[in-house]
Amino acid sequence: MVFMSRQVVKIPADIREFVVEKAQIYPTNTVILSPDTGLFKGVFKNPQIQLVTETRTLFTEHIVLSDHVPVEEIWISDEMLEQLGTKEGEKIQVLPLSRTPPDSYWLIRKRMIQKRPFLPTEITMIVNDIAHHRLNQLEKTTFVLSQVYEPFNMEEIEELTRAMAETGDMIDFGQQTVFGKHSTGGVPGNKVSLLIVPIIAAAGLLIPKTSSRAITSPSGTADTMEAFGCDVVFNADELVEISQKTRGMIVWGGGFNLAPADDILIRDVEFPLGVNPSTMMLASIMSKKVATGIHFLVMDLPTGYGTKIKDIGSAQALGRDFAELGRRLDIRVESGITFGASPVGHTVGPALEAREALQTLMNPREGPSSLVEKSCELSGILLEMAGKALRGQGRELAKQILYKGQALDKFCEILDAQSGDGSLKPSDIPVGEHSVEILSQSSGWIVQIDNVKIAEIARTAGCPKDKGAGIVFLKKKDAVKRGESMIRIYSSSESRLSAAEGKFAKLNPITIEGMLIGRV
Amino acid sequence: MVFMSRQVVKIPADIREFVVEKAQIYPTNTVILSPDTGLFKGVFKNPQIQLVTETRTLFTEHIVLSDHVPVEEIWISDEMLEQLGTKEGEKIQVLPLSRTPPDSYWLIRKRMIQKRPFLPTEITMIVNDIAHHRLNQLEKTTFVLSQVYEPFNMEEIEELTRAMAETGDMIDFGQQTVFGKHSTGGVPGNKVSLLIVPIIAAAGLLIPKTSSRAITSPSGTADTMEAFGCDVVFNADELVEISQKTRGMIVWGGGFNLAPADDILIRDVEFPLGVNPSTMMLASIMSKKVATGIHFLVMDLPTGYGTKIKDIGSAQALGRDFAELGRRLDIRVESGITFGASPVGHTVGPALEAREALQTLMNPREGPSSLVEKSCELSGILLEMAGKALRGQGRELAKQILYKGQALDKFCEILDAQSGDGSLKPSDIPVGEHSVEILSQSSGWIVQIDNVKIAEIARTAGCPKDKGAGIVFLKKKDAVKRGESMIRIYSSSESRLSAAEGKFAKLNPITIEGMLIGRV
Repeated sequence: MVFMSRQVVKIPADIREFVVEKAQIYPTNTVILSPDTGLFKGVFKNPQIQLVTETRTLFTEHIVLSDHVPVEEIWISDEMLEQLGTKEGEKIQVLPLSRTPPDSYWLIRKRMIQKRPFLPTEITMIVNDIAHHRLNQLEKTTFVLSQVYEPFNMEEIEELTRAMAETGDMIDFGQQTVFGKHSTGGVPGNKVSLLIVPIIAAAGLLIPKTSSRAITSPSGTADTMEAFGCDVVFNADELVEISQKTRGMIVWGGGFNLAPADDILIRDVEFPLGVNPSTMMLASIMSKKVATGIHFLVMDLPTGYGTKIKDIGSAQALGRDFAELGRRLDIRVESGITFGASPVGHTVGPALEAREALQTLMNPREGPSSLVEKSCELSGILLEMAGKALRGQGRELAKQILYKGQALDKFCEILDAQSGDGSLKPSDIPVGEHSVEILSQSSGWIVQIDNVKIAEIARTAGCPKDKGAGIVFLKKKDAVKRGESMIRIYSSSESRLSAAEGKFAKLNPITIEGMLIGRV
Repeated sequence: MVFMSRQVVKIPADIREFVVEKAQIYPTNTVILSPDTGLFKGVFKNPQIQLVTETRTLFTEHIVLSDHVPVEEIWISDEMLEQLGTKEGEKIQVLPLSRTPPDSYWLIRKRMIQKRPFLPTEITMIVNDIAHHRLNQLEKTTFVLSQVYEPFNMEEIEELTRAMAETGDMIDFGQQTVFGKHSTGGVPGNKVSLLIVPIIAAAGLLIPKTSSRAITSPSGTADTMEAFGCDVVFNADELVEISQKTRGMIVWGGGFNLAPADDILIRDVEFPLGVNPSTMMLASIMSKKVATGIHFLVMDLPTGYGTKIKDIGSAQALGRDFAELGRRLDIRVESGITFGASPVGHTVGPALEAREALQTLMNPREGPSSLVEKSCELSGILLEMAGKALRGQGRELAKQILYKGQALDKFCEILDAQSGDGSLKPSDIPVGEHSVEILSQSSGWIVQIDNVKIAEIARTAGCPKDKGAGIVFLKKKDAVKRGESMIRIYSSSESRLSAAEGKFAKLNPITIEGMLIGRV
């Protein structure tokens, strides 16, 4: 009734040859066979197929049987066909077998049962197998969940970080000192990288920033850069070459092959299960930094409701962990704990955020203080780390660079370098042609804007695919009167706009408190 | 970079209608679509499809894209077609969505993060979702692994057992008292049920035994019964009706729908990952007992190398857990801790074991003492629990029933009732036509026969599918001389026989110690 042993079911003596029929198949490691092949008539727990040609062997993970496939054919994907080096219509040996987990899985299982830390070599082996698709989804889940129950110690995190970085591309800036900025996320409208990168680059420091595209948020920095009309996909050589000149770039990190094992674990385990152990978060972020060759890093740790960090105490502990992990990896890390419970600036959505960032670079005195202050504080930390400013004076230097227009000049240079237009004006950036203003139902003070709800409304309006979609806060931490406009929602589609309006009414993301607190 | 929120990607407004093309597809909840449908062009983490007809809605788990499928067609399995109530060639609505885990998964996740026990109602909800295929493989893995790290307490095990039993068939023997026997397994040749059932039934007690087929072992009791030429697949009504007359039956438990959630977890999680938390083992065994309506149960706990139970201390603790769990479920359980480090009797493999069991029933005085003693000890426990014998005298009563031929008569009656032949002789049972004897390479004493290696050799010879395949121990705990025959291997296939012979030479499952222990 209960099976403990792992046992390879014997391969039948009568190996069958099949005619390869190429097909565009997804997932790519899937094969489709006729149920009448008789290939899996015995007991096959975890059935798997080994495809054998004269020179290559390949294992498949997903087997689908369908009687649309002729008995003597096997349908395999273009990618597998290429890996096998076989041509369509050629014959191929198809061996059924019962999959045995790779050795690295037994290490994962051993840590789980014996509750003892991994050795560095063990982690290297596991990460290598993840990067090369040798562990299946269940086995990868066991690896991630082991960190929820028996968190990795710092030695294990260090090795996980190193191994994830080293199994992907490593970008080489030679002898130059490289600066970076990263946020743990969760705050809509957090466009600070668009100010920090030009400020730091204008100070003469090298900051080739890799950013993400939005997955569950309304806009990633890479999406916003695209709203400027810029390219964000570059290869490593281009990144190194262009940033020699501009000192700063803002590109999409997914355009490289940085720490692919990390992306695999996020896609196959962490996202579907909604789990993200803090040890994985540390290793995930730092592995990308190791792979991009960064020496000095400022971490933005947005803290508060709706973000990943609940309270100041957790943020402080996380900041210390980043510093310690960085020390082991020769990256100096300092963290800024920032207020994360409300959106940054007055806009959410790619084009609207692009407009606001450019406006603020052009006229910082009239920019939203949350955006200007946060950008200058985080820039100041980097300037101090670099020795460009004395301790406590970095923020002032950042402000000077911004206020004197040096950051704007640098940003225009970056736009040009990334195939954009350096003479762009904010109004040149197209926003959604449909918009609606939402009026306050009561008079009082706006005391809270809910990040999670705002993100959902913006996504309903079309973010991030619809670059012109988004939200403008007409009032923020202000007094409002009943009937006054609070926000404006934009979309390129009328139906999505009214869906977003309906979502606003349902979610009610803005809390207004009357002047009268209570009456006794 | 890191995604924490679960977010349903919006269903596009342009719902597409597809023509249903029926196909024999496995896994059955798979659909095959053209990659050109454009159905999944947006961001779909965990893509899933909702199939909508006028009356029904169905969710698929596996989506395969293949350009062999015409753009306007969707290939779905016979089973899904039936569930949808749609005919081939009809139109069907196909809605892409990003799968959100069911509520029960968030309970599993909550226990994991907060490290607090489940409430009974939570377990009921989870097991219900498992039985109805609403949790995916990853989510089920999280449920099982949570028991490895934070073992269930007895309340949780009790509720898991009850919920697993109640989500499947419940066999009803009315007012009658039902007896049972179960082994935790791991010992090849353990044919004791073939003696215990007739002994207990001959004493007038009702023992409708459900047995397993071999999965990783050489032979399950159900396989051995088939080697007698008996049917082992019955429905619940037949089991109740036939065992009214014979008092005893030996049938295949898999022929019913007993605790299906347990089978799902074994197949999807425990077997592929090679994990079997002790809390799952308790609930697994006892849920089947609850579902078969058992009141008195004797547990065989084979202990020692190669079994699931390492040492006497663990066996005692497990026995106490079975007793306590039984008390909560109104099943009286007593456990026998048995020597499990060597095979039971002299034969391994369905037909050989059938022959040996029948021979022993016909002539117990010449049967292997390991088989006779173990069968009578475990039978004795049941006879004492039933009040048929005083404490300490059950074993003697069992022996009397066996030695007087009453157990043989009863067994023949059972053979007849299960469509076998009650006048069968041991030599009537066909064994493999090819055999080979393996000679000892040295002189000395056989001190150990390795269960795991013996099982592997027997499986190589063809067990359990080849009913005539197996091993006979010509010597066991005996003195052997160099060149003397130790074992004989049988198979119906010459090539499998020589593979088994090769496996024997490689594994060397029999340890022989010389009379001279050492020389100083």
